[in-house]
Amino acid sequence: MKKYSVLLFLLTALVTTSSAQELRNFNFGREPIVSPEITESQVTFRLLAPRAYEVRLYGSWMADFRSTLAMSRDTSGVWSATIPLPDPEIYTYSFVVDGVSMNDPSNVHMQRDGTRYLSMLLVEGGISEYYKEATQRGNLKSVWYDSPTIGFQRRITVYTPYGYEANPRKKYPVLYLLHGAGGDEEAWSSMGRARQILDNMIEKGEAEPMIVVMPNGNPWQQAAKTLMLPEKEFQWGDPATANLYVNSLVKDIIPYVEKHFRVIAKPESRAVAGLSMGGGHTMSVSNLYPGMFGYICPLSMGIRDGQEIDAELKAIKKAGYKLYWVGCGKEDFLFESANALHQALERNGLEHTYYVSGGGHTWPNWRTYLTIFGKLLFK
Amino acid sequence: MKKYSVLLFLLTALVTTSSAQELRNFNFGREPIVSPEITESQVTFRLLAPRAYEVRLYGSWMADFRSTLAMSRDTSGVWSATIPLPDPEIYTYSFVVDGVSMNDPSNVHMQRDGTRYLSMLLVEGGISEYYKEATQRGNLKSVWYDSPTIGFQRRITVYTPYGYEANPRKKYPVLYLLHGAGGDEEAWSSMGRARQILDNMIEKGEAEPMIVVMPNGNPWQQAAKTLMLPEKEFQWGDPATANLYVNSLVKDIIPYVEKHFRVIAKPESRAVAGLSMGGGHTMSVSNLYPGMFGYICPLSMGIRDGQEIDAELKAIKKAGYKLYWVGCGKEDFLFESANALHQALERNGLEHTYYVSGGGHTWPNWRTYLTIFGKLLFK
Repeated sequence: MKKYSVLLFLLTALVTTSSAQELRNFNFGREPIVSPEITESQVTFRLLAPRAYEVRLYGSWMADFRSTLAMSRDTSGVWSATIPLPDPEIYTYSFVVDGVSMNDPSNVHMQRDGTRYLSMLLVEGGISEYYKEATQRGNLKSVWYDSPTIGFQRRITVYTPYGYEANPRKKYPVLYLLHGAGGDEEAWSSMGRARQILDNMIEKGEAEPMIVVMPNGNPWQQAAKTLMLPEKEFQWGDPATANLYVNSLVKDIIPYVEKHFRVIAKPESRAVAGLSMGGGHTMSVSNLYPGMFGYICPLSMGIRDGQEIDAELKAIKKAGYKLYWVGCGKEDFLFESANALHQALERNGLEHTYYVSGGGHTWPNWRTYLTIFGKLLFK
Repeated sequence: MKKYSVLLFLLTALVTTSSAQELRNFNFGREPIVSPEITESQVTFRLLAPRAYEVRLYGSWMADFRSTLAMSRDTSGVWSATIPLPDPEIYTYSFVVDGVSMNDPSNVHMQRDGTRYLSMLLVEGGISEYYKEATQRGNLKSVWYDSPTIGFQRRITVYTPYGYEANPRKKYPVLYLLHGAGGDEEAWSSMGRARQILDNMIEKGEAEPMIVVMPNGNPWQQAAKTLMLPEKEFQWGDPATANLYVNSLVKDIIPYVEKHFRVIAKPESRAVAGLSMGGGHTMSVSNLYPGMFGYICPLSMGIRDGQEIDAELKAIKKAGYKLYWVGCGKEDFLFESANALHQALERNGLEHTYYVSGGGHTWPNWRTYLTIFGKLLFK
């Protein structure tokens, strides 16, 4: 009960003074473990594990995703490893304690990638300047809407830019930003850092202030699995389920957004972009609804060899559009499919940008693409 | 590269069919670990850890918070432990692998308690019916506002009830709901499940539809530590910092909310409640601004023995209020301070409810209190 007596003292002190300095800095006599510790040239990771036999480090900066780095133990039972500072980027990492992968308990910075929570390392400079908090920040809203097309209440994440509340008459263009397989309506705001990227681009005057809508692309779900909501038994073979999600995007989500947010409801103020499966959705929705979106940006996705989409692309060309932007990494396992899309766009005379980056099918690429095509929207 | 070829096949299939069933159910040939597995009478926890020497289980249902339960290993390296089903509630738990505490990687349901992420177990029935998702759900908004009082942009979480968007002329009462030491503007929506509790109470017709504002009670922070924003060097001794947060609540937050949300801006439609340090803030703000709040609910907090608040309480009585609701657990280390508050309220003739529960200084108590006083607000 001694610990509690101390807390009682501190908490009753709070009542009087409304100050929490004691509690805030109170670490119960133990030196806090600092991890990750970043200096100008290196990063040190640490874990208190006096009874572990082996602790290894895995980080997304490692070239081979099967490799891990041995950490070494000091006499107090703290394991550590120091690496040269990787290039500016957001990385994820984990400790492998006697063969079991775990997060860094000293690091409050986590991202959720589908069903996994990952410890996060932000190396400043370069592209990371878009990942840090801007001075003027937009708001994120977690919004339920009715989806008659799919048949239940579903959830979207909506970004409204800085100034949206202060300028109650201003209307904004909208980007519909779609996640990949395994993701959900929080993927772009968590792994993708969409709020921070938009905040920074808008604050620097590089991008137009815009609303960003991030839906859930899994039509069997109401929302992310974290909410424990029941999921639908999905009839995959049923023709009625084909394009269910992209139809609901046009029939349910866009009308909801245009009714409840201050939106310029015109094709030239409406963009769609998505990564991987969401790149597939981007193509499906723009093919099915030519003229709906002025800006079409499939990322790390394309068409399979020989896939016939000439009629659809011709319809998009005829309906008119402002930008068709395809981004893919040279090492992406879908690079050939992106090349095939590029060729189909060429063949059908659709003006477009084909942005080929280094790297593969990864969040660093998708975040970077957002910093590039984001500046081209609504101009 | 073989894994990638399979993915290529699956993902290009997606482009054609817009279906993700293969990827969704694809577990790379390994049986997924199910944990926690809940039956009618027991819960089983599992962890794949073939190289660990010892795996133990800690859960918040355990009477002694220092105890852990040994898990046993099967021949495939999966460790498991089965416990009788605890009473309906939300619990948190962790695995201790060779002495190191970690989350359950098979469980996507997590809560953040300050700087720690905790695996979560929801046992259905009883009070947990308020913790599950209702059919009609309100929205959560993560909102930045300018705080001239504290001196930077800060963040609040705002709950708007189901129907807020569909009824654009309706105005709502507001509950300001304050967290404890170590918490932040996401504590009540994560650990406290405030959205689900409000959704359920409102859907059942037990509570009035209301807006709930959950601020950050740490005036040195702009927002939760998860955002990596710089924090202030706080001058604790400086009289200028005394009551800084509760002053900013009245001078910055309430005006922002009343300007940007559809709020009934009257004392009888304004409530304040808070737990622990937030209970202290609840008393401070109602003492400093008598007549501002019609409903005053300090939870698991009170006054220190001999503390003089008679003048303040008399001023509250004179200004008028609708409800003064004090809740505390018998085993709470602050129970004596809550008793002292109860006596001071009695002594000064303030009608009030003193709700004494079992249990201690815990989230199950704070969530339960919300389900009780929440029904009494704005009636």
